[in-house]
Amino acid sequence: MKNFSDRTAYESHLESIGGLPRGFVSGVCGLDFYPVELTSGPPYKMNLSMIRLEEPTSSFAGVFTRNCVKGAPVIENMARMKQPYCSGVVINNKIANVCSCDGMTHTRTILGEAEKHAELPAESCFLMASTGIIGWRLPVMDMVGKLEELNANCAGKNALNVSKAIMTTDAFPKIRSIDIEGGRILGIAKGAGMIEPNMGTMLVFLLTDIQIEREVLRKALAAACNNSFNCITLDGDQSTSDMALAFSSNIVTSVDTRVFTQGLESLCIDLAKDIVRNGEGTAHVIELRIDRAASAGEAACIGKAVCNSPLVKTAIFGNDPNVGRLIAAVGDAAGNSGLGFDVSRITITMGGRTVFQDGCFRLGPETEETLCRYLKAAMFEAEKTGYPEHQKMVEIVIDLNRGNHNKTFWGSDFSYEYVRENADYRT
Amino acid sequence: MKNFSDRTAYESHLESIGGLPRGFVSGVCGLDFYPVELTSGPPYKMNLSMIRLEEPTSSFAGVFTRNCVKGAPVIENMARMKQPYCSGVVINNKIANVCSCDGMTHTRTILGEAEKHAELPAESCFLMASTGIIGWRLPVMDMVGKLEELNANCAGKNALNVSKAIMTTDAFPKIRSIDIEGGRILGIAKGAGMIEPNMGTMLVFLLTDIQIEREVLRKALAAACNNSFNCITLDGDQSTSDMALAFSSNIVTSVDTRVFTQGLESLCIDLAKDIVRNGEGTAHVIELRIDRAASAGEAACIGKAVCNSPLVKTAIFGNDPNVGRLIAAVGDAAGNSGLGFDVSRITITMGGRTVFQDGCFRLGPETEETLCRYLKAAMFEAEKTGYPEHQKMVEIVIDLNRGNHNKTFWGSDFSYEYVRENADYRT
Repeated sequence: MKNFSDRTAYESHLESIGGLPRGFVSGVCGLDFYPVELTSGPPYKMNLSMIRLEEPTSSFAGVFTRNCVKGAPVIENMARMKQPYCSGVVINNKIANVCSCDGMTHTRTILGEAEKHAELPAESCFLMASTGIIGWRLPVMDMVGKLEELNANCAGKNALNVSKAIMTTDAFPKIRSIDIEGGRILGIAKGAGMIEPNMGTMLVFLLTDIQIEREVLRKALAAACNNSFNCITLDGDQSTSDMALAFSSNIVTSVDTRVFTQGLESLCIDLAKDIVRNGEGTAHVIELRIDRAASAGEAACIGKAVCNSPLVKTAIFGNDPNVGRLIAAVGDAAGNSGLGFDVSRITITMGGRTVFQDGCFRLGPETEETLCRYLKAAMFEAEKTGYPEHQKMVEIVIDLNRGNHNKTFWGSDFSYEYVRENADYRT
Repeated sequence: MKNFSDRTAYESHLESIGGLPRGFVSGVCGLDFYPVELTSGPPYKMNLSMIRLEEPTSSFAGVFTRNCVKGAPVIENMARMKQPYCSGVVINNKIANVCSCDGMTHTRTILGEAEKHAELPAESCFLMASTGIIGWRLPVMDMVGKLEELNANCAGKNALNVSKAIMTTDAFPKIRSIDIEGGRILGIAKGAGMIEPNMGTMLVFLLTDIQIEREVLRKALAAACNNSFNCITLDGDQSTSDMALAFSSNIVTSVDTRVFTQGLESLCIDLAKDIVRNGEGTAHVIELRIDRAASAGEAACIGKAVCNSPLVKTAIFGNDPNVGRLIAAVGDAAGNSGLGFDVSRITITMGGRTVFQDGCFRLGPETEETLCRYLKAAMFEAEKTGYPEHQKMVEIVIDLNRGNHNKTFWGSDFSYEYVRENADYRT
């Protein structure tokens, strides 16, 4: 992805890459409602979106949150994975429909009505995705009243409007696409908070016209998520509601499965980085590589601990190369996990510069100043500007020298803006 | 503890309870230095403190951080636990002496010189505690040059000056004391960030004149820490440097061991709450009780996850009773730990009001307004005022209804002030 001069240029770029793969249409419509949980105040605005396959497909897949408390749409979609055919997904923002009274009934009512308006054959179905406040009830009758309009609007051929309609606290819409041997994969993502390694983490919709069998698609999606969305963290909180769904219209034949899987993973990594870049209050993206861990689990334990450490995150926000906090976070995770670490084997670099080696810090005025400059250069202000100004990241490598497992993680810093957004998210 | 009108009244209170137990003296002295890690800027100010027993004691104990990366004083003190006698502790703030070049030598040099000035008998020793920036080197020769003055100053009979000298980002000094059957326990604590369940968490010094054998004191200290300092969290980061040390001058005889142990635990719980109340940027103290967990480990897993959730913490900072985030944090922890939770058994109350029961939220405008008022009433501004204005806490109970293990945790909210302090801690 190139650099952009402003939001308009960024959206033009998204539109240029956002054409839906063959066999898909999409649409959105708006809705005003008064939450039953509040007595007064102006109406809330919700967007309904629909992504639809022109023909039902048996090639659909889903990866869902591992949070024990799952939203109604997650529970319903997990059950629908067994259906023979699927025709797409209905999406709402503003309310996540988690543990609300009659939440399951609400999800099924909306899906049933949407399926009627779309005149789906009896053997096909829609899935549902809801994102927003946990605990509130969906304005179900208001939503049902809008489904005819949504269905009528669902004739678009570009993902830009859907990518914007599903946003909550996102600073900018997120679309990635890749062309493979005459076919195409398109990815749309939403998510800026409550993001943490371990799927589901956000709403992601992956659409392709490349022919792929259901079971192959499901395996490819799980693998792609594992190295992308499961390796990012914004705040360590794994949502109750989030999911990645994939659909194929099976129009383009004869693409090698391995090539498809690699393409899907590469697209998911790009989308995952977009999500971090767009995190609530993110001013720096951290790319952390854990090298030579004894196991994949060890790499994940250490990587996640460092990326989620509030002290590491606030230091990077302040352009303060306080590398002591890196080694403290490594030791904290290792100590609590019972890993017997030998600190003297660890090497840490930031921006390519060695800051810790042989059990000691390698610090001094020149390193301090160089790293300050490096951190300042990697800052951005997507939340103010509404688009990703550049792709720079703060690159940290922690070489554990204990084995042969390498893994990369992406996380964000911790800013005033994060606190501001989350201190009063609902107003 | 009562309420105070201002910092002066608070310090007067500390002085009134801060008399050292019989057999102890203490003192402080200041020191200006230029860190070798920086080329320019004004000198840094360090405080050196000493707490000393008039006679060497064999009754001393320590609980140390479980962080794999341990500061030099932690490593040295752990070794010195085997010594036959101990005569007290030398403390410095500003630099934690962790993984710095020659850090172990620096600690031993300072201890050796301090022992010479104090004319300790060959069989006794001092311990050391250092707190502050990780990675920097101690100004060891400057510190050695001040030890004669420190030793001469070490004749005070009240803990107030030491409790102030060991502060780093603390908003106010922390002292608690308890009188037991003619004897006395005094506790001094320091710590406002990098605090998380699992000792060591901070610097805590516990002094008593009550006769107690070494092994009994060590067991009592471990038990007291487990239900106090190990149950608090400010930012989920466990320090490399922190420790709780206990010393007895063995002057007062015939106190029941069980009574002593209970008194020590009660004092430690009060000190632990003081530390949370004083956390970097803390505006609310959260008291979270996990009821009816299947095991103590399960209670700790859920309690810690909720107290450390940035989304829960920022909502409480904003006086926003966003209780959806509570159940999301419970489910996240349960899902990642492989605990098979039945959400419909969980009951959650905030401020005594039920907000979640039978798998559904119990929310509405009246509950929302009541909880907002409740959260606002529990706010305080110790960081601005420099003293704890009141003792109110945000009381949350999560009843898991899975067993018979109850446990209480204390945590802080997440504010702008936390980010500000940690984004540029070193300047």
